[in-house]
Amino acid sequence: MIHLSLIGIGTGNPEHVTLAAVRALNEADLILLPRKGEGKSDLVDLRRLLCRNLLDDSSAARVVEFDLPRRDGRADYLGAVDDWHAEIAEVWAALMATHLPQGGRVGMLIWGDPSLYDSSLRIAGRLSAEGQEVEIRVVPGITSLQVLTAEHRIPLNALAEPVQITTGRRLRERGWPSDAASVAVMLDSGGAFESLPPEGLYIWWGAYLGMQKQCLIHGWLVDVAASILAQRAALREQHGWIMDVYLLRRMK
Amino acid sequence: MIHLSLIGIGTGNPEHVTLAAVRALNEADLILLPRKGEGKSDLVDLRRLLCRNLLDDSSAARVVEFDLPRRDGRADYLGAVDDWHAEIAEVWAALMATHLPQGGRVGMLIWGDPSLYDSSLRIAGRLSAEGQEVEIRVVPGITSLQVLTAEHRIPLNALAEPVQITTGRRLRERGWPSDAASVAVMLDSGGAFESLPPEGLYIWWGAYLGMQKQCLIHGWLVDVAASILAQRAALREQHGWIMDVYLLRRMK
Ligand SMILES: C[S@@+](CC[C@H](N)C(=O)[O-])C[C@H]1O[C@@H](n2cnc3c(N)ncnc32)[C@H](O)[C@@H]1O
Ligand SMILES: C[S@@+](CC[C@H](N)C(=O)[O-])C[C@H]1O[C@@H](n2cnc3c(N)ncnc32)[C@H](O)[C@@H]1O
Repeated sequence: MIHLSLIGIGTGNPEHVTLAAVRALNEADLILLPRKGEGKSDLVDLRRLLCRNLLDDSSAARVVEFDLPRRDGRADYLGAVDDWHAEIAEVWAALMATHLPQGGRVGMLIWGDPSLYDSSLRIAGRLSAEGQEVEIRVVPGITSLQVLTAEHRIPLNALAEPVQITTGRRLRERGWPSDAASVAVMLDSGGAFESLPPEGLYIWWGAYLGMQKQCLIHGWLVDVAASILAQRAALREQHGWIMDVYLLRRMK
Repeated sequence: MIHLSLIGIGTGNPEHVTLAAVRALNEADLILLPRKGEGKSDLVDLRRLLCRNLLDDSSAARVVEFDLPRRDGRADYLGAVDDWHAEIAEVWAALMATHLPQGGRVGMLIWGDPSLYDSSLRIAGRLSAEGQEVEIRVVPGITSLQVLTAEHRIPLNALAEPVQITTGRRLRERGWPSDAASVAVMLDSGGAFESLPPEGLYIWWGAYLGMQKQCLIHGWLVDVAASILAQRAALREQHGWIMDVYLLRRMK
């Protein structure tokens, strides 16, 4: 029997880890630490640092790094994702079989919160489907969206109003969602907000949130759209990768 | 000069506090701990417990409890909220003037995350507007919505799809938001989901999330709507108060 904990670790600030996450890490027999390629070695370093700093001497946890398979870029997005998840599940299962042949507790470090645009729950679900006896537990973590609002010192929602959380792809395809005064955009490969008529929209943008190289920009979209795009390109060039997220709000 | 930290403390599980929150509490000169009335004394107890357990001996923090003014229930909702915020800001200002006449660091315990359906940022904004020199900092915390998804072991969003976060009031008034496959509902005084045609909707419901008395129900809305309402009424009767939140998803 495998007890698998998906442990949210926040998005860059090592102090955003919860006490429950620290406990789950320390109680694990095996900690799986994904390496993602794409030059994002800072992120692997951060995970290593968390393990080093948070595991106390009495912990029996063995930390094992593994390379995440890469998703194939074919046009059939959902099909490619499905194959990719199957591949990752196989890698997880093999690691558990090798390092915990008698079963035990596995801790998996998850960026941000496992509930938000993250596939680990879907992948974990496949393990049980494939006949592994797995009990899953989720330890919530601070999301990039929460770091965005915290650093800008703003609420996510306008008073008593709804918020839509969406992706860059979706925003491009469908435009502004009709029922929300506020829209948070994740997974934007760059400038999906340019597809919107900018009048009356305010934007709070953040990249590398929680990290030392964090960068924040806010203002009316008409005024700051160009500088966000320029800044984003420059930072990406400088660091070799970027992750950013933003909140748009209709305001008068 | 006042340095005001709005510190997210999670929603009932004391281990959902982050290391950053623990640090902010310990660095405060004054911790303001609101009492809300409404028989929710469990919540005050939890805040007291957090302070007791998390403040170490070297901390100079003084913990001061105060009664939150009650919002007037008049029909003009936004007007009533506005007056209420002004009143709370006055209470905060008076407490700071009394306990920190020379200025200093104030920590305010905020339920969940300060960005999500919470007014403390708006209230804090009034302090500066009224001429107090205040520097505001936000420490993110785990939201009730994250505990809901963690305890049900589900993602918030369907794969690559958007999510709408809204209120019970809004769901009743406007129905299902047109652009979202998933809708999370907060601040529902009870059963706003009854206003929706239930076909094809799955619900994950949770009350007292993170607490010992936590209660979870999930299933197709047609099947479980009545038992959620019955359970909600019974729990409310038993404990004298209730807080609940749920996620609805269109599924095939
Ligand atoms: C696959 S999703 C994972 C989100 C994560 N589970 C969370 O809770 O934030 C990746 C997206 O999250 C956002 N993101 C994650 N970490 C970030 C960071 N440190 N700064 C800015 N955006 C970040 C970006 O929009 C990125 O495209
Ligand atoms: C004023 S809002 C504050 C939300 C809070 N800032 C957060 O991050 O969750 C209060 C609403 O949050 C939800 N809520 C807060 N704590 C909860 C808990 N422990 N269990 C279930 N719902 C909760 C309920 O929907 C409640 O009506």
